[in-house]
Amino acid sequence: MATIRLWTDEEAEKSPAVKAVFDDIRAVRQSDFINNFWRALANDPVTMKRTWESLKAIMGGEGPLDPVTRELIYIAVSTANGCSYCIHSHTAAARQKGMTDAQHLHLLAIIGMASETNNLVTALQVPVDPAFLVESS
Amino acid sequence: MATIRLWTDEEAEKSPAVKAVFDDIRAVRQSDFINNFWRALANDPVTMKRTWESLKAIMGGEGPLDPVTRELIYIAVSTANGCSYCIHSHTAAARQKGMTDAQHLHLLAIIGMASETNNLVTALQVPVDPAFLVESS
Amino acid sequence: MATIRLWTDEEAEKSPAVKAVFDDIRAVRQSDFINNFWRALANDPVTMKRTWESLKAIMGGEGPLDPVTRELIYIAVSTANGCSYCIHSHTAAARQKGMTDAQHLHLLAIIGMASETNNLVTALQVPVDPAFLVESS
Amino acid sequence: MATIRLWTDEEAEKSPAVKAVFDDIRAVRQSDFINNFWRALANDPVTMKRTWESLKAIMGGEGPLDPVTRELIYIAVSTANGCSYCIHSHTAAARQKGMTDAQHLHLLAIIGMASETNNLVTALQVPVDPAFLVESS
Amino acid sequence: MATIRLWTDEEAEKSPAVKAVFDDIRAVRQSDFINNFWRALANDPVTMKRTWESLKAIMGGEGPLDPVTRELIYIAVSTANGCSYCIHSHTAAARQKGMTDAQHLHLLAIIGMASETNNLVTALQVPVDPAFLVESS
Amino acid sequence: MATIRLWTDEEAEKSPAVKAVFDDIRAVRQSDFINNFWRALANDPVTMKRTWESLKAIMGGEGPLDPVTRELIYIAVSTANGCSYCIHSHTAAARQKGMTDAQHLHLLAIIGMASETNNLVTALQVPVDPAFLVESS
Repeated sequence: MATIRLWTDEEAEKSPAVKAVFDDIRAVRQSDFINNFWRALANDPVTMKRTWESLKAIMGGEGPLDPVTRELIYIAVSTANGCSYCIHSHTAAARQKGMTDAQHLHLLAIIGMASETNNLVTALQVPVDPAFLVESS
Repeated sequence: MATIRLWTDEEAEKSPAVKAVFDDIRAVRQSDFINNFWRALANDPVTMKRTWESLKAIMGGEGPLDPVTRELIYIAVSTANGCSYCIHSHTAAARQKGMTDAQHLHLLAIIGMASETNNLVTALQVPVDPAFLVESS
Repeated sequence: MATIRLWTDEEAEKSPAVKAVFDDIRAVRQSDFINNFWRALANDPVTMKRTWESLKAIMGGEGPLDPVTRELIYIAVSTANGCSYCIHSHTAAARQKGMTDAQHLHLLAIIGMASETNNLVTALQVPVDPAFLVESS
Repeated sequence: MATIRLWTDEEAEKSPAVKAVFDDIRAVRQSDFINNFWRALANDPVTMKRTWESLKAIMGGEGPLDPVTRELIYIAVSTANGCSYCIHSHTAAARQKGMTDAQHLHLLAIIGMASETNNLVTALQVPVDPAFLVESS
Repeated sequence: MATIRLWTDEEAEKSPAVKAVFDDIRAVRQSDFINNFWRALANDPVTMKRTWESLKAIMGGEGPLDPVTRELIYIAVSTANGCSYCIHSHTAAARQKGMTDAQHLHLLAIIGMASETNNLVTALQVPVDPAFLVESS
Repeated sequence: MATIRLWTDEEAEKSPAVKAVFDDIRAVRQSDFINNFWRALANDPVTMKRTWESLKAIMGGEGPLDPVTRELIYIAVSTANGCSYCIHSHTAAARQKGMTDAQHLHLLAIIGMASETNNLVTALQVPVDPAFLVESS
């Protein structure tokens, strides 16, 4: 159903560039499972590698936001952008990293609320209050 | 610049329904400041009250997500929805509730990353992996 | 502020193709006012004419939806698409065609509500009920 | 396929909070059918009840816009937001409330036209005409 | 699965207005295949004809942009708008017109990059540099 | 007006990480001008560097798509995402790289057309034709 071919493990074995990323994904995630996003991106090893390196840096490793919070933000953006695949994969990732059902439901309520007020504000064309501006001085 | 008139405090004083919400906003926020969103919504006291009650329940009070995390999610949704006013107001709110500069920058990196992969996935039309489905049985 | 030059009446006078559309807009609207959208589109007389003809056919003339309802739908789409200019111009057009303040506020409430449930549904990835399908037989 | 479990009638019977909303939906709609959106929202009875109460107030009952017009606006927003489920469910609801095929086709033409001009305006970055501003005085 | 009935060739034969467009599509494309978009639009022969005439003028015929470039832009817009059908159909069309795999992958990288920076800029609310303004003089 | 401070050249001089990117931008573009996007991103030197390196690789250098085509795609995505800043900056960049007025107008017509059909397809919920599927075998 994709607009591009999804790579099998057998094909990945034959391309050192693809194999290297697949191997690193498996090592970092401590799982043999490679999801379809990477099997599609394998058609472009350069983009695949750059995307994986960015993802590792931003979603993994140390940082001021904890792993579950990062996934909640990812789900929020993916929802507003209407990316079905991303909502599925990051909801699964969030659960695996410890998101509770209560946190998931709270997230959903915030997404709904924000979308409602976003569109109310837009339809009303409310001007930004000077108090909110950083560079107002 | 709005598509509707913004209510002044003098006008709000004359409408018991509007005054009641303005008073509650000031009491909850412990500040005299009423931002333009509410001054625009005041044209429809029923929607204004319903929106304020929902906002209080979802963004305030107890809950499984802490106040800063809630604001980060709100900013993420507002960004993907392109609501300039909402980004300004909730970035200000997040700072007031304790969001650090490092957390803000991490949020931005996640928003950028998610938007990139959302659009890559969409252009590739990647099919959802069965492993991500909740109701697959 | 546009990414293209806005045509003045003097310039329009010198281009028969542009002048013809400007003249028709003035005749149909019974007003001398030409808004900036057409002054920008004047750079491409073919697109300008095609767009104006479509607009006349869809938003003007007879049809199963009355003029105010058509504008309400236009505002709804423009809001969800985040087009500030379009929200301003079609809210003004709706008022001119008879939209009441009460109808405007009802429209806003529906836009907010729909956006909230749209995003809840998307985050939940709710499968379509078979009962809703037209071609299910 | 959802990111959350869909509640069956049997499960709903065991939760007074969920049962109360299911019962009210059936009473208001005079139909035994509960669509999947509510079966998903049942996981969060508080959000389910708030959403249902808002929906009843905005889409049902008296108001300055008639029931079919409200559904047309809902479909328009859902289309621009890309919510497949919502388009299916509200197109079905609009038909049930009396939307004719001719009205549906007129709606589609307006949605297409508005989306085209929204994006033309955005690409052109057309500045808002002062004549459209409400608060320009 | 559509919200409207898809027309078969047999039905199209009975409507002169629909048959005329189907015939022209087949003649222009030199193929007997009529894709579902036109079978759905056939319900509204006026919109179908207007859409087909616009499409022929913009995507076909002579012009300053070559056929493959036009399709790349179409895919880019369809991706950002999240239209699954359009991404599938225009990716197929682009390939048929000569888009290479390397061009497709380059397109994908640009779409991802643009979406990332679009959202970073929006979250940052970066003010437009005066140097970018056309009408700044 | 940004939600973050914009860095001046004086400040950039004091941060080796920021200075290095500013210097490289100036060298690559052969211009002293640093636009506001980079002055905002300077608050996060890691994201700034990663973004600049990606941009150089995707928008600059050799590749199967020529520089003007890349910018046309960037404008198309930025328009559909509603990023005013990005539309301004990439329209300016496209002109600088040789985009003619005729190409710009053709781009606009395609963006408008694609947005119209995207939304028609979405409102119609047209099912993807099997002929368009890559992985259908």
